[in-house]
Amino acid sequence: MGRKAGSHSEITGPKVREAALRLIARHGFAAVSMRQIAAEVGIQAGALYNYTPDKQSLLFDLMRSHMEELLESRVTSAGGGSALERLEEFTRFHIRFHLPRGQQVFVSYMELRNLEPENFQEVERLRRLYEDELEGILRQGVEEGAFAVADTKITTLALIAMLTGISNWYREGGRLSVGRIEELYWAMVRNMVAVLPIEGAELPTSVLAARAS
Amino acid sequence: MGRKAGSHSEITGPKVREAALRLIARHGFAAVSMRQIAAEVGIQAGALYNYTPDKQSLLFDLMRSHMEELLESRVTSAGGGSALERLEEFTRFHIRFHLPRGQQVFVSYMELRNLEPENFQEVERLRRLYEDELEGILRQGVEEGAFAVADTKITTLALIAMLTGISNWYREGGRLSVGRIEELYWAMVRNMVAVLPIEGAELPTSVLAARAS
Repeated sequence: MGRKAGSHSEITGPKVREAALRLIARHGFAAVSMRQIAAEVGIQAGALYNYTPDKQSLLFDLMRSHMEELLESRVTSAGGGSALERLEEFTRFHIRFHLPRGQQVFVSYMELRNLEPENFQEVERLRRLYEDELEGILRQGVEEGAFAVADTKITTLALIAMLTGISNWYREGGRLSVGRIEELYWAMVRNMVAVLPIEGAELPTSVLAARAS
Repeated sequence: MGRKAGSHSEITGPKVREAALRLIARHGFAAVSMRQIAAEVGIQAGALYNYTPDKQSLLFDLMRSHMEELLESRVTSAGGGSALERLEEFTRFHIRFHLPRGQQVFVSYMELRNLEPENFQEVERLRRLYEDELEGILRQGVEEGAFAVADTKITTLALIAMLTGISNWYREGGRLSVGRIEELYWAMVRNMVAVLPIEGAELPTSVLAARAS
């Protein structure tokens, strides 16, 4: 992870990341210097290099660890079940994971352009792993006859954009609780992939049963 | 618009905007200097001040003109019709307007943080005008019994995030044509707001007719 072992780094590491995240979200990667980050942490600029070799490594560490945390949290909560159950679980997980991480979401999107090619590829690889999981759920739903999805890749991207977009307007203590936001978005997601009468197919009883549950 | 009248500015203005947009999208507002923008246009730094008093005005001009162009294009194409027809027209318009404007979309989202309070409020006011139009369509659909939408404000934000998110992955000459993208997204939007059998209500024949058209 680019961190050195030892108690010093164990304490400084998270502080450096928090400071870097805060400053980059506020000013943008190109406008933030290592000196500023060190000052924000309250250490000498030289001491910062004990933690990270350069600003690029710091950015990469922030973006990679965000994706890794997402994937790890997801793995522990993943399970079997119908496509509809899995989609609901994915939707609620995605919202709960991202809502308290507005700055990470912002930096992860905005600073992709500043990753060096190798680092960019790695972050993209992790992002695709996450997308693939959602696409797998959609494929399962299509196979079960539970979902009407013309292009599982595009629906994956549409759902992730829609759900991650909550971070653009969500503020703690606002009109809606996280629970209510989950309910509203899950209703929209469910509708979006649902087999409608217009599609010309009879609704299988298994689908109706799954929807009613 | 912060531009001075006269043939000189008429020519330089668009070039300055294009250069500023390109540089800000690439490096971020805080990291770009007036000197760099002037060099990108191919004029002296001093000449740039004939066009704009400062960098903040330039950013505001970029973001405001993006929103104004969006609203003006929209007004000319708006019309009557059923909520379903209006929603389809809105969806296709939104996609066609934003797809060729990836840099504007990126800068408009990313650099909100760098607008001074007064300028931020004005850009937010324009953004809300656009959102209100979509929300009005959703309200009309609920009143017509054509849409099942629990919270028209949240569905408005969800739809806009989903549709604008296309800019994150769309590249000219990619797998899907703009026409195909419009079809896929319109199918998802229509589904998302549709009254489903699960909602417990009988589908009015007007809804079935509208869906089949």
